[in-house]
Amino acid sequence: MDEGNFTYHGSRNLKIRSHDDATWILTSAFIIFTMQSGFGLLESGSVSAKNEVNIMVKNAVDVICGGLTYWMFGYGFSFGDDEPYTNPFCGWGKFFVKASEEELGWVYSKFFFQASFATTATTIVSGAMAERTKLESYIVFSMLNTFVYCFPAHWIWGPKGWLQEMGVIDIAGAGPVHMVGGLSGLVATMVLKPRHNRYKKKKMPQMGSPTNALLGMFMLWWGWLGFNCGSTFGISGLKWKLAARSAVSTISASTAGGVVGLLSSYIVKKRTFDVAYLINGVLGSLVGITATCAMVHPWEGLVIGLIGGSVTITGVALLDRFHIDDPVGCVGTHALGGAWSMLAAGLFARRDTFAKELHLDAVQNGLLNGGGFYQLGVQTLAVVTLTVWTLFTSFFFLKIIDLVMGLRVPLEEEILGADIVEHGI
Amino acid sequence: MDEGNFTYHGSRNLKIRSHDDATWILTSAFIIFTMQSGFGLLESGSVSAKNEVNIMVKNAVDVICGGLTYWMFGYGFSFGDDEPYTNPFCGWGKFFVKASEEELGWVYSKFFFQASFATTATTIVSGAMAERTKLESYIVFSMLNTFVYCFPAHWIWGPKGWLQEMGVIDIAGAGPVHMVGGLSGLVATMVLKPRHNRYKKKKMPQMGSPTNALLGMFMLWWGWLGFNCGSTFGISGLKWKLAARSAVSTISASTAGGVVGLLSSYIVKKRTFDVAYLINGVLGSLVGITATCAMVHPWEGLVIGLIGGSVTITGVALLDRFHIDDPVGCVGTHALGGAWSMLAAGLFARRDTFAKELHLDAVQNGLLNGGGFYQLGVQTLAVVTLTVWTLFTSFFFLKIIDLVMGLRVPLEEEILGADIVEHGI
Amino acid sequence: MDEGNFTYHGSRNLKIRSHDDATWILTSAFIIFTMQSGFGLLESGSVSAKNEVNIMVKNAVDVICGGLTYWMFGYGFSFGDDEPYTNPFCGWGKFFVKASEEELGWVYSKFFFQASFATTATTIVSGAMAERTKLESYIVFSMLNTFVYCFPAHWIWGPKGWLQEMGVIDIAGAGPVHMVGGLSGLVATMVLKPRHNRYKKKKMPQMGSPTNALLGMFMLWWGWLGFNCGSTFGISGLKWKLAARSAVSTISASTAGGVVGLLSSYIVKKRTFDVAYLINGVLGSLVGITATCAMVHPWEGLVIGLIGGSVTITGVALLDRFHIDDPVGCVGTHALGGAWSMLAAGLFARRDTFAKELHLDAVQNGLLNGGGFYQLGVQTLAVVTLTVWTLFTSFFFLKIIDLVMGLRVPLEEEILGADIVEHGI
Repeated sequence: MDEGNFTYHGSRNLKIRSHDDATWILTSAFIIFTMQSGFGLLESGSVSAKNEVNIMVKNAVDVICGGLTYWMFGYGFSFGDDEPYTNPFCGWGKFFVKASEEELGWVYSKFFFQASFATTATTIVSGAMAERTKLESYIVFSMLNTFVYCFPAHWIWGPKGWLQEMGVIDIAGAGPVHMVGGLSGLVATMVLKPRHNRYKKKKMPQMGSPTNALLGMFMLWWGWLGFNCGSTFGISGLKWKLAARSAVSTISASTAGGVVGLLSSYIVKKRTFDVAYLINGVLGSLVGITATCAMVHPWEGLVIGLIGGSVTITGVALLDRFHIDDPVGCVGTHALGGAWSMLAAGLFARRDTFAKELHLDAVQNGLLNGGGFYQLGVQTLAVVTLTVWTLFTSFFFLKIIDLVMGLRVPLEEEILGADIVEHGI
Repeated sequence: MDEGNFTYHGSRNLKIRSHDDATWILTSAFIIFTMQSGFGLLESGSVSAKNEVNIMVKNAVDVICGGLTYWMFGYGFSFGDDEPYTNPFCGWGKFFVKASEEELGWVYSKFFFQASFATTATTIVSGAMAERTKLESYIVFSMLNTFVYCFPAHWIWGPKGWLQEMGVIDIAGAGPVHMVGGLSGLVATMVLKPRHNRYKKKKMPQMGSPTNALLGMFMLWWGWLGFNCGSTFGISGLKWKLAARSAVSTISASTAGGVVGLLSSYIVKKRTFDVAYLINGVLGSLVGITATCAMVHPWEGLVIGLIGGSVTITGVALLDRFHIDDPVGCVGTHALGGAWSMLAAGLFARRDTFAKELHLDAVQNGLLNGGGFYQLGVQTLAVVTLTVWTLFTSFFFLKIIDLVMGLRVPLEEEILGADIVEHGI
Repeated sequence: MDEGNFTYHGSRNLKIRSHDDATWILTSAFIIFTMQSGFGLLESGSVSAKNEVNIMVKNAVDVICGGLTYWMFGYGFSFGDDEPYTNPFCGWGKFFVKASEEELGWVYSKFFFQASFATTATTIVSGAMAERTKLESYIVFSMLNTFVYCFPAHWIWGPKGWLQEMGVIDIAGAGPVHMVGGLSGLVATMVLKPRHNRYKKKKMPQMGSPTNALLGMFMLWWGWLGFNCGSTFGISGLKWKLAARSAVSTISASTAGGVVGLLSSYIVKKRTFDVAYLINGVLGSLVGITATCAMVHPWEGLVIGLIGGSVTITGVALLDRFHIDDPVGCVGTHALGGAWSMLAAGLFARRDTFAKELHLDAVQNGLLNGGGFYQLGVQTLAVVTLTVWTLFTSFFFLKIIDLVMGLRVPLEEEILGADIVEHGI
C-alpha cells in the first residue's frame, strides 16, 4: 500500500492510503460519469424536439474529444508534479498519462476521477450553444476547452497551485467545473448570438420534452452525491465522516433549492408550477453547495442551497431580459451558482479537524464563524481570477474557431433543425 | 472508529463499526435515490401522456418537501434516542439533524440512508393520486406524510420500538415503506374518487409511454438491489455475507415474479403479453422479498417472489373490479405485496448466526422452519397495526387538506391534462 | 473471513479474501445490471417505433428467464467444482445454487456477479432478432441460451477450464459474453431471415428514437466501467490497482472508438454525423478492450479501441451488403468486436505481477511485448472454438424452436408492429 506523501497541500495531492480509498474514488467516478446521461437528457429535453438528438451527440463528444485532450495534456497541466517545472500557475509532467507498475494504482485512480470532472466541465458549455452550433466546430471547441479548464484546476487543486497555497476552499469543483463551464457558456452564447427569431416572439420557446428534462435533473441530482462525496478523495481515516457530511449537506441544499423553485414559480407565474423554475432551483442549489459540501452543517447547507437556487433563478431571468440566449439556463446555474458557492465558503468555512484531514492547511474560519475577512477575500480573489481567465481564454478560442471554420450553422439548417436521424451505413 | 453500542435491538440501532460500513451505507443510499428516477418514469409512463410531466414533478416534490420534513422531525420521531423521552411508540431527539464532530460520521450516514427510505415511502403514494390531484395539495400532503411514515418506522427499527422488541422482522422496509405507502395510496384514491369517466369506458386507459414505464421498472429493479443489500446497514463482520444473500434472494424473487407476470398475462389475456402484468409481477415480487431478503435461501426467495407477484396481479384486478381507481397499481404492489412480505417472514424466518449479527435478538424460527406460530403472530400483529395506523392517519391528513384547500383539480383541467410545459421566466 | 484456496487458476476461482472484496463484487454487479436498461434503450431506440415496447419486454425476459435457468444449471455447468465430476469441458455441482451459512458469502457474491454476466450475454442476442420474432419463442430461446453460454464460460473462467489452463486471457468476457452473444445473434438473424421488405427499399430504416438509442449508449458506457473494473473480482491485495487500470483503459479505448465513429461517418457520409456510426464506434471499442482491460497501458487501450471501433463499423457495413439483417448492429459490435478483443490479448498481454495477482499463471507475454506467438495462438484457438461452438449450438436450439413453435411472427403482425400497449387487467 502506498503511503501518502505530504509535500503538497490539498486532499487531491495526497496519495491514496489504501484500497478502500481506491474503491471510494473509483465508485464515485463511476457515479459521476452517469451525470453525462443526466446532462444529455436535461439539455435534449429542454431544447426544441428538432434538435434533441444533436445535443445528445454533443454530450458524447464532450467525453470523447474532451477526454482525449485531457489525457494528452489536461491532466499534466493540472496535476503533473515534475520538478522543477511544476509551478503555482501550472503543473508539468504526466502527459499522455502512463504509470509504472508501482505507481499505477493511485495515478490511474486519480486520473480517472479527475477525467470525470474535466468532461463534466465541457458538457456544461454545450447547453449554452444549443440549437445553432456547427457540430464540427463544437468538436474542435470541446478539445480546446480542456485548456480553459486545466489551469484553474491546477490553481485550486494541483501541487503548488497558487490559490490552494492561499487556502482557497473548493471541495468539489464550484470554481474549475461550474464557474469555468458556465462562463465559457456565457462567452459562447454571446459570440454565437441568439437563436433565429428568439426574441421576436413574445413567449418563451417550449421545452421539447419536459419529462426528459426532469429525468435529466433526477440523474444529475443523484450523480451529484457521487460528485460531492467522492471529492473527499478517499474514505479512510476521518474521510468517511466527511463523505457522510457531504451527502447530508448536498441533499439538504437541494431540498431548499427545490422549495425556492416551486415557490418562486408559484408567485411569479401566478399559481402555476413551471418545470424550468423547479429545475433551476434544484440545480442552482446543488452547484451552490459544491464548494463547501464536506464542511457545513445541514442547516447551513439549507441556507446555501436556498441562496443558490434564488441566485440561479434570478440570473436566468436577468439574462433573458438582456436578450442573452442561453437555451438551458447554463449560465445562471453554473456561472452564478458557482460564484455563490465559492463565496459561501468564505462565509461558512471551518478550520477544524476535518480541514486538516483534507490537508487544507491554510484555511481560516469563515466570516460567519468568527474568522474575519481572510477566507472571504481568498474566495473572492478566486472568483475574480477565474472569471477573467475564463472570459478571455474561451473568447479567444471561440473567436479563432469562428474565424477559421465558422461556429454557426446556416440559417436554413437552424430553422429545419440539426437532428441527425439516419441510421446505418 | 466508533465502537457500536449495543443498548438497543436491531441493526439500524448499531453504530457504524468502520469506514467500510460507511462506504456501504452511503453507496447503497446513492443507489436508492436512483429509484426516484425509476418511480418517476414508471408513473409518468403509465398515465396518459397529458399528465406525464405533472407526475414527474410530484416525484421531485416527494424528495424536496418530504425530505425537508424528514430532516425537521421525521428522523427524530423515528430514530431519536434522547433519554428519558424515547419510548416504544416514538423516538425523541435529533430533530433538525445536526451532530458534533465526533458523532457526525455515523449520525449523518444513518440519516442519509433513512432519508432515502422515507422519501421512497412518499413517492409510492403519488401513483395512486395521479391525473386528478392539485399540485398545491400534493405538496402539503407530501410534507404531512412524514408523520404517517415516521412512527411505524420507529416501532420496527427505532430504539425501544415496540414491534422490534417483540422480534418483528422487516429487513428493508416492507412495512414502513411499502405497506404504509401503498395503504396511504388506497386512502388517497378513495378520498379523491376515480378519474373522470374512468369506469364509463369499457377499455382500460392506455399507458402513455409503455417504454418509459418499462425503463422505470428496470431502474427500480436495479435500485432494489441497493435497497435490500444496503439494509444490512454495514458490510463488516458477517454483514457482507448477508448482503450477498440479499442480492441473490432479491434477484431470484424477481425472476419468479417476472414468470408470474408473463404467464398470467398469457393465460388471462389469451396469448398476449401485457406490459402491466409484467411490471406488476416483477415489482410485486420485489416488494415481497423486502422483509426477509437477508434471511432466506435462493429457492425460498423464488417462492416468496412467486406469491408476491401473484398477490399483486390479483390485487390490481380486484381493485379494478371494485372501481377503486389506482392508475399505476400502487395499492396492489405496495400494500398487498408489503403485507405478504411481512407474513412471509413469519413463515421463513431463521434464528441463526445472521439474525444475531443483525442484532435481531427476539427473532424466532418461522412456521416452516419448525418455530411455531410466534414469529407469524408478531408479523401479523405488525401488519394489522400498520394497516390501522395508516388508514386512520392518512385519512385524517387527506380529509383536512381536502376541506381546507381541496384535493382535486377542476374537471376542466382534469380533462385537458395537468401538464406544466412552460419553460423559462 | 474465508481464506482463498489456490487449487484452480484464474481470479474467478479464488475465494473472496475479505468483505472489501465482497463490497467490490456486489457493487460492480449492481452497476452491471444497469446495463440491461442501457441495452433496452439502445435497442428500443434503434428499431422502428412500432416495436419499441416489444424489444423492451424481450430485455426483461432475458433477466427473468435467462436468470432462472442460470440459477438452475448455468452456474453449475460453469463454476460447479464437485470432485471428481468437474472437468476441462464443464463444471459440475452447485445446481440450484444454495450454500451453507459458512460458504454463502462468497458463493452468493460470485453467483450474483456471474449472473449479471450471463443475463448480459442473452440480452445481446435480442437486438439481432428484433422486429420479427415471436415472444413465446424468444422466451424459450432465452432459457436455452444459457446452455450456449455456460460451457464457454467454464472453459475460460471455470475450475479446470481447458482454455484457462492453457493461459487464455479474457478478463471481462469478450469471449463468453460478447462473441457468444454476437454469434448467436448472427445465427438467429440468418435463421429468421431479413425483415419484410428490408432490402427492397433503398434507404436504411430510420431509428425510432435516436435520443433513446444514445441514452442507451451512455448507460452502457458507464455500466461497462463496472463490468471491466469489477472483473478483477476483488479489490484487496494488488487488485485495486488492476481495477484502476481497467477504468482508465476502458475510458481511453472508448474515446478512440468515439473518434473513429465520428470521423468515419464524416468521411463516408459526406460531412454528416450519423448516430449509428457513433454508437457502433463507441460500443465496438468497449467490446474491444474487454478482454485485456486490466492489463494494458492507456495508449494501448487507445489503439485497441481504435481498431475495435473500426472493425465494428466495417463489419456492420459488410453485413448490410450481404443482406444479413441485424437491426441494431449486434453482430458487428459483439461478435467481431469480441473476436478482436480476444486477439488483441495475444498482442498486448503481459506476464507481470498483476497477471500473477489474477492467478493467470500460464499467461505469456503477447507478440508485441516480445513473447512470441504462444499467447496469440491460445487466443486464436479460443476464438475458433467459441465460434464453432456457438454457431452449432445456437443453430441447433433455434432450429428446434423454429420447427416446434415457429420463430417468426405472422407477416401481418410484423407489418403492424408487435407492440404490446394494453394496460391493466
